[in-house]
Amino acid sequence: MRLATLTSGGDCPGLNAVIRAVVRTANKMDSTVIGYEDGWVGLLEDRRRDLYDDAYIDKILLRGGTILGTGRLHPDKFKAGLDQIKSNLEDAKVDALIAIGGEGTLKGAKWLSDNSVPVIGVPKTIDNDVNATNYTFGFDTAVSVATDAIDRLHTTAESHERILVVEVMGRHVGWIALHAGMAGGAHHTVIPEEPFDVADICKSMERRFQMGEKYGIVVVAEGAMPKEGTMQADEGGIDEFGHKTFTGIGQQIADEIHRRTGYDVRTTVLGHIQRGGTPTAYDRVLATRYGVHATKAALAGDSGKCVSLQGEAISLVDLEDAVGKLKVVPPERYATARALFG
Amino acid sequence: MRLATLTSGGDCPGLNAVIRAVVRTANKMDSTVIGYEDGWVGLLEDRRRDLYDDAYIDKILLRGGTILGTGRLHPDKFKAGLDQIKSNLEDAKVDALIAIGGEGTLKGAKWLSDNSVPVIGVPKTIDNDVNATNYTFGFDTAVSVATDAIDRLHTTAESHERILVVEVMGRHVGWIALHAGMAGGAHHTVIPEEPFDVADICKSMERRFQMGEKYGIVVVAEGAMPKEGTMQADEGGIDEFGHKTFTGIGQQIADEIHRRTGYDVRTTVLGHIQRGGTPTAYDRVLATRYGVHATKAALAGDSGKCVSLQGEAISLVDLEDAVGKLKVVPPERYATARALFG
Amino acid sequence: MRLATLTSGGDCPGLNAVIRAVVRTANKMDSTVIGYEDGWVGLLEDRRRDLYDDAYIDKILLRGGTILGTGRLHPDKFKAGLDQIKSNLEDAKVDALIAIGGEGTLKGAKWLSDNSVPVIGVPKTIDNDVNATNYTFGFDTAVSVATDAIDRLHTTAESHERILVVEVMGRHVGWIALHAGMAGGAHHTVIPEEPFDVADICKSMERRFQMGEKYGIVVVAEGAMPKEGTMQADEGGIDEFGHKTFTGIGQQIADEIHRRTGYDVRTTVLGHIQRGGTPTAYDRVLATRYGVHATKAALAGDSGKCVSLQGEAISLVDLEDAVGKLKVVPPERYATARALFG
Amino acid sequence: MRLATLTSGGDCPGLNAVIRAVVRTANKMDSTVIGYEDGWVGLLEDRRRDLYDDAYIDKILLRGGTILGTGRLHPDKFKAGLDQIKSNLEDAKVDALIAIGGEGTLKGAKWLSDNSVPVIGVPKTIDNDVNATNYTFGFDTAVSVATDAIDRLHTTAESHERILVVEVMGRHVGWIALHAGMAGGAHHTVIPEEPFDVADICKSMERRFQMGEKYGIVVVAEGAMPKEGTMQADEGGIDEFGHKTFTGIGQQIADEIHRRTGYDVRTTVLGHIQRGGTPTAYDRVLATRYGVHATKAALAGDSGKCVSLQGEAISLVDLEDAVGKLKVVPPERYATARALFG
Repeated sequence: MRLATLTSGGDCPGLNAVIRAVVRTANKMDSTVIGYEDGWVGLLEDRRRDLYDDAYIDKILLRGGTILGTGRLHPDKFKAGLDQIKSNLEDAKVDALIAIGGEGTLKGAKWLSDNSVPVIGVPKTIDNDVNATNYTFGFDTAVSVATDAIDRLHTTAESHERILVVEVMGRHVGWIALHAGMAGGAHHTVIPEEPFDVADICKSMERRFQMGEKYGIVVVAEGAMPKEGTMQADEGGIDEFGHKTFTGIGQQIADEIHRRTGYDVRTTVLGHIQRGGTPTAYDRVLATRYGVHATKAALAGDSGKCVSLQGEAISLVDLEDAVGKLKVVPPERYATARALFG
Repeated sequence: MRLATLTSGGDCPGLNAVIRAVVRTANKMDSTVIGYEDGWVGLLEDRRRDLYDDAYIDKILLRGGTILGTGRLHPDKFKAGLDQIKSNLEDAKVDALIAIGGEGTLKGAKWLSDNSVPVIGVPKTIDNDVNATNYTFGFDTAVSVATDAIDRLHTTAESHERILVVEVMGRHVGWIALHAGMAGGAHHTVIPEEPFDVADICKSMERRFQMGEKYGIVVVAEGAMPKEGTMQADEGGIDEFGHKTFTGIGQQIADEIHRRTGYDVRTTVLGHIQRGGTPTAYDRVLATRYGVHATKAALAGDSGKCVSLQGEAISLVDLEDAVGKLKVVPPERYATARALFG
Repeated sequence: MRLATLTSGGDCPGLNAVIRAVVRTANKMDSTVIGYEDGWVGLLEDRRRDLYDDAYIDKILLRGGTILGTGRLHPDKFKAGLDQIKSNLEDAKVDALIAIGGEGTLKGAKWLSDNSVPVIGVPKTIDNDVNATNYTFGFDTAVSVATDAIDRLHTTAESHERILVVEVMGRHVGWIALHAGMAGGAHHTVIPEEPFDVADICKSMERRFQMGEKYGIVVVAEGAMPKEGTMQADEGGIDEFGHKTFTGIGQQIADEIHRRTGYDVRTTVLGHIQRGGTPTAYDRVLATRYGVHATKAALAGDSGKCVSLQGEAISLVDLEDAVGKLKVVPPERYATARALFG
Repeated sequence: MRLATLTSGGDCPGLNAVIRAVVRTANKMDSTVIGYEDGWVGLLEDRRRDLYDDAYIDKILLRGGTILGTGRLHPDKFKAGLDQIKSNLEDAKVDALIAIGGEGTLKGAKWLSDNSVPVIGVPKTIDNDVNATNYTFGFDTAVSVATDAIDRLHTTAESHERILVVEVMGRHVGWIALHAGMAGGAHHTVIPEEPFDVADICKSMERRFQMGEKYGIVVVAEGAMPKEGTMQADEGGIDEFGHKTFTGIGQQIADEIHRRTGYDVRTTVLGHIQRGGTPTAYDRVLATRYGVHATKAALAGDSGKCVSLQGEAISLVDLEDAVGKLKVVPPERYATARALFG
């Protein structure tokens, strides 16, 4: 048999580990693999290359990003290209497709499957917001990078008796902030799921200064929002280069804490370092297991399914269940975090 | 209310994160905490100290080992000391005990609970062999340390066209070898659960040399055993200092591969570095969540229970279910690993 | 004899390693040590504590920041306080002072020494801009942190075919940018010492895209300045909280590259993570050697001197030579870096 | 012009960084580069390949080992092959050779240069024992890996109240032990240059237990030797596979400490992980600078020289000065270390 694979959406540590596992598993089962470049775009434009279980593929396990490149394609263009996609796959004699990506990609995968293209999905997102799986690969790496940064900020905050506000990724969900805040010993953490009152953050900080710990670390997800009426949020705009012209929420919170308490407050925005580089051991294992299971499912004739981590096991779930809604941080998880605040 | 806690058995990254979470959560719920030193021994000998949510406790999150010390106590001595233990706990006005440890410790906890001492258990083992929980903290750190080492060994093996046999921890179960082997891109992995035939390892290595990849990495759990009749295993003995006088299984396998293939083969035994040092972000989160939940359970009057990771959630299971038998690597997990061998 | 020590100026990985070495060396030579808190301020206000070679001091080797705290004191206030300082040191029976800090601190140390207070200086700056020593501790850690970040940014830039501009510390000198750029395989690096023409950066990037490498990493020291007439620089201002209201130079360069080439360009500002956290092995060794040598010099009756790394050896130089002028990146070093640009 | 390069001797982090710098610098100066495989052997057997400044070469900066492979060739065979070497270089139109290796390689380079082959040497050794340069690349990485391991061993030693003996590389010189011991906060360090009396080590350990610090870390270079008459050293032998049959010096010291003090003592042998894997930022910078300077020297017509780090500058020294004798740890460096022992 012959499989095709592609990576789509934002890059994420572990994508190459999936590709490597797909190629190696397929080759061992006497099947071949091709890769389409730059996600759905490359599938539509028929930009493909052969992938073999060679020295090159063996070594990509540790490499961040994706050797196939990634891209974004508007759903309308994607759907309009169905005939082209089918003919490209037929030309390349592809029996089944393994699509690696986030929610948008999995939606596309489901739609293809509904339209008679055999597809298995592999969920990917550093945000950990895909439903129907306990964890997605890339998330552990993002949390580790953020935690390393927070570890370093503790000592500088303490030496200068400062509060440091650390803005981490998470536009819609607070998983990275929740885990990095807990792992990094933050003294307060705010997430998009729970609108914050800056007065609570100030209280946590003041408690610390009163007990003699004259510094604090506040972790803020980039999508955090103030409770209505508690703080004027900067709506901002977008300049000609697509940059946000408004002050990030981390900086806004920092300013407000300073205004209310008088403490010396600084902000650090971690940015892109959270999504690149060598995956952690955890993510390499998860990504590799996803790749092996997706390949076996595709070769067994499954379609319209998505690999998923359920406790210790990898299982197959319907793509439909994976794409319905974002997985948000449940209130009880935030309550556990709150037990550790300053 | 007043809680006591202790750490028992081998040390493990994350123990201090549990202690910190217990103290902070209890203090926030208007309860106090004392710690007994050196595990059950300190409880028996009434060596205790007060623990407060102060700067010292805040900072132990990143610290490997255990600030309370650890120790081992023979079950007979432990049982004979029941009255002493009860009277010590009564003297200290302890309402409930949080016992952090591996299988032996949890058995002790269950026995105490059966004898009317309120106890909540927290499972701990870098080996990940405790039943009734998906993962134990310390395991991810051990796997990460082993994986970092394997990453480094790839390039030296390749430059010298060598096979490197890496012996990792795991006397009875192969979880560390399984995960570190997969994360580290090992070309063969052997675990105690599946007796090995060195001929299979040689075949994996020969395949690599034939395809032009003139090196190989073999990961071996220290408790790996050859299939009967395939290799003479060194039984060895114990010298006056308690050292094993026989050759470790990693070295035995290395010798046998060399004997059969003629390749240059070397051995590295990772040893104690796998169990010490700063825990990974993953382990800090897991240990912290265990600590918060164990404290809430103890303060709520639960006893005879053990905190446990089930998918994404922390739940309480009966201590009885946690101590029945070791959690071994299931055959399907080893089959997934095998798909990636050389 | 009796020594006093203090840390002054911005925090820096390795400060605690110096303190530990001072205390341990002095105690072994039958001398005692006190530490003043928050730099010169604590000396003036007589806030001091005894330091012993105990478990606490042993463990600070790995800790970033400074256990003594740090602070800044205006030179005028400092000089006006001379009598107070002398009387405080006399009260505490201090025979000599070991002052750990950057250029400002060393100037203060020299002035004290000129005014009959025995002082030995230990140079400290992550910027590596202190004259009369090959390297200062903290610099290697800052470079390592920045290099780790750049390593991660490569894969994300490559996957998305982007240019990433990374702004690192270095307001007046480009040492961190120079070393992190070289270690991180940047495709262009700009430093304050060599005004840049953004056209050169664009040329490096275009060459890469032409050879098929469709991404680029540009490392920018925060104090980089455009060549006159080549680019409109944002002068900006300072808002009420002391934040820069103008766009950082990294962002300005990113905007300009995009404007001229049309490539997708993003910016990451590394910020405070460069100055906190556990020091590298290199910095621990350098800081420890400084501490031992400074202590031996102080106990031997030296004054007005500064420890200094010269090749492999630690020697004593006149404080006067250390504070004259900033050590900038020499043109031949930048020429070597340029040989590696894109 | 046309350069050739090769890597010889044991592998070492940073070799690829040199190769990359040579290729890129040469290409920018309108020159071409070929690489010979497996050191002198490949030069003799004319196994060569073209190296270009492409995506592949750009990415090897982070990779341990050497993409050219390495090997050892007996000096007699090497010298007997002079005519062959000359004719191979002539065939390939090579104007000058850049030989990257340790003392043996540099001796070979000098001999070739004496025999009219233009050669520039680049010193390489993780042991840091090459004379005429302050540091060699690979050393900082080895020290960092060893230090990370020692950091982890502290907490496990402390939790179990044990002494841990860590054997690091260094058969003839103690640089790695000296630096890793100091950076890792070892409580005693022994090096080949200073024969040890195990009684001194016991004294350091006993002092710690007396002051309440009930654990200790002893760092031992693999070539450490006892003072005559102080301890029976195991001479050992070599078995059929080339393995040492005697107990390593680390284990011997551990046994002896236990025998004399009764403490619980364990041994860890770090082994091959010290010489593989991604180089530190420090080593990448040093290796890159060596590569650029060696290339410029070769293209300028220099020969019989070796690049060398002198303080902050890279300079050229005579190969003769680099190969005369091993650079050992000077007594004053060991005295500084001793000031920090337990």
